[in-house]
Amino acid sequence: MLDQRSFPLASLKLLASARSAGKTMEFKGESFKVEELTEKSFDDVDIALFSAGGGISKKFGPIASEAGAVVVDNSSAFRMTDGIPLVIPEINAEDMGGITWQSRKGGIIANPNCSTIIALMAVTPLHREAGVKRMVVSTYQAASGAGQAAMDELVLQTKEALEGKEVTKNIFPIQYAFNLFSHNSPMQENGYNEEELKMVKETKKIWSFDDVSITATCIRVPIIRAHAESINLEFERPLSETRARELLSTAPGVSLIDNRAENTFPTPLEASFKDDVFVGRIRKDISSDGEKGLDLFVCGDQIRKGAALNAVQIAELLLKQ
Amino acid sequence: MLDQRSFPLASLKLLASARSAGKTMEFKGESFKVEELTEKSFDDVDIALFSAGGGISKKFGPIASEAGAVVVDNSSAFRMTDGIPLVIPEINAEDMGGITWQSRKGGIIANPNCSTIIALMAVTPLHREAGVKRMVVSTYQAASGAGQAAMDELVLQTKEALEGKEVTKNIFPIQYAFNLFSHNSPMQENGYNEEELKMVKETKKIWSFDDVSITATCIRVPIIRAHAESINLEFERPLSETRARELLSTAPGVSLIDNRAENTFPTPLEASFKDDVFVGRIRKDISSDGEKGLDLFVCGDQIRKGAALNAVQIAELLLKQ
Repeated sequence: MLDQRSFPLASLKLLASARSAGKTMEFKGESFKVEELTEKSFDDVDIALFSAGGGISKKFGPIASEAGAVVVDNSSAFRMTDGIPLVIPEINAEDMGGITWQSRKGGIIANPNCSTIIALMAVTPLHREAGVKRMVVSTYQAASGAGQAAMDELVLQTKEALEGKEVTKNIFPIQYAFNLFSHNSPMQENGYNEEELKMVKETKKIWSFDDVSITATCIRVPIIRAHAESINLEFERPLSETRARELLSTAPGVSLIDNRAENTFPTPLEASFKDDVFVGRIRKDISSDGEKGLDLFVCGDQIRKGAALNAVQIAELLLKQ
Repeated sequence: MLDQRSFPLASLKLLASARSAGKTMEFKGESFKVEELTEKSFDDVDIALFSAGGGISKKFGPIASEAGAVVVDNSSAFRMTDGIPLVIPEINAEDMGGITWQSRKGGIIANPNCSTIIALMAVTPLHREAGVKRMVVSTYQAASGAGQAAMDELVLQTKEALEGKEVTKNIFPIQYAFNLFSHNSPMQENGYNEEELKMVKETKKIWSFDDVSITATCIRVPIIRAHAESINLEFERPLSETRARELLSTAPGVSLIDNRAENTFPTPLEASFKDDVFVGRIRKDISSDGEKGLDLFVCGDQIRKGAALNAVQIAELLLKQ
């Protein structure tokens, strides 16, 4: 993402655990040696992109910030922490507040959960117009949300299943090839898993709006790298299909694919490797009264807009401030 | 199904188009020659199981019935016809009315849509207790719903995709391997496809209850033969999680898999080749007030309970009458 978007960096430092230190990686034709992450790593860093899990973020995020770097954190460590902005640049850039990299005063900005980002890219323009009262989401989530190893396991298992062999299960306890299962994040006492509750809580924070009721069912489907979501919306105020389509056709980072005549709608395959979130199946909900309900279907690349792209967009916002 | 359930038939007649006539098929160790379907085919038939598409049903269903056979029709031809029962034996056997095979007076009974059957097996016991007011469904439908050719195409495409080849698209215009797409049934003017509207209309007929609001989003996922559905329910009267679990644990044809501690819930792979519909993820909907909302997740074999098993169960009911 830094490469493809030609992020104007003066220097690049790659940090990882001791295990990876010493490896080399290419960036724009130049070789960079991976260094071991230590408490001294951030002394000369302006912007630090973290994506090494919640534990590392919790420990090293504050250290980097105190050293003067602005941290853009992809883990869930700080998302719900008061005072830490949770940002989708197209939606709530204003929440970045006074954080600047030039001041060398540090700061932490959290990158939201992938399913939340992908849903809100499509739902927020509608929320601003008509006020979302209630949202019922069912997700169709790709392997990539669980990392490269999960993507590899899906491919390996699919080969094995096609050959009639027993499938290798290292990442998930359930066969993934030609199957789907309830999201593997920890189950809470109320019967929702963490992924589902992230969608509920993060939406309220990103919208700065508590007065919305949300339920989600998060399911992993045997797809490589883009998520899909079926979203049912109830609004405070009437919103026609036509107006919803108008709003979404001009929303930044959103592409409409909603051709009923040709039966073409967003698919995860089409959304893969794309920056935009795709939306379609926009229709008046026949189970709602009047024009206060809509159904829609969204797809977005989990690795791009669901993670890396959104993080780099936050870093780009920092440059503008 | 006839074989596995030891249906007590005295004789068996296999009917098909001229193209298939003359082929032989095995049944309980005996060879049967497929005969060409004609207007005279039903003169000596007591029960006729139709599964050859709506056109054939519309033409030959009434002919068979007039010849004195009771038709159990798996197509959508008669499902919404007034006076023709639409039956899930565990749910509305009483709707079969006075139809008997012994009278030789004929009759037509319709087998519901597969997604409708699978949803209602789990939802009906809850509806009877607390009255379903509104239902929001998102489906995860298998290839089998589009027939053997679709199942074969999914397997072929998956092999091709793994080999980096372009995929063969004969059945669906969109790649199915490692992808999902909006159900391929014809799109209606209101933006719902026929599969979705079947769920809406058939539910009301099966329940003999118009006062329920339903919306559905039907999606095909790259799974071979069992459907999954994410179902959000709003009730007229309070219904606790505990009571819902109690009701479903004793509902005929339903198996509970709802182990939060172990994170085990229904999967289509586990539901495949099984007669029961599996239900889990039963939880109080946190977006609803009080105890008037529940979320759940169901899986059922599309070929068995979604089609052939339900049809044979209807035939079994005829024997009991």
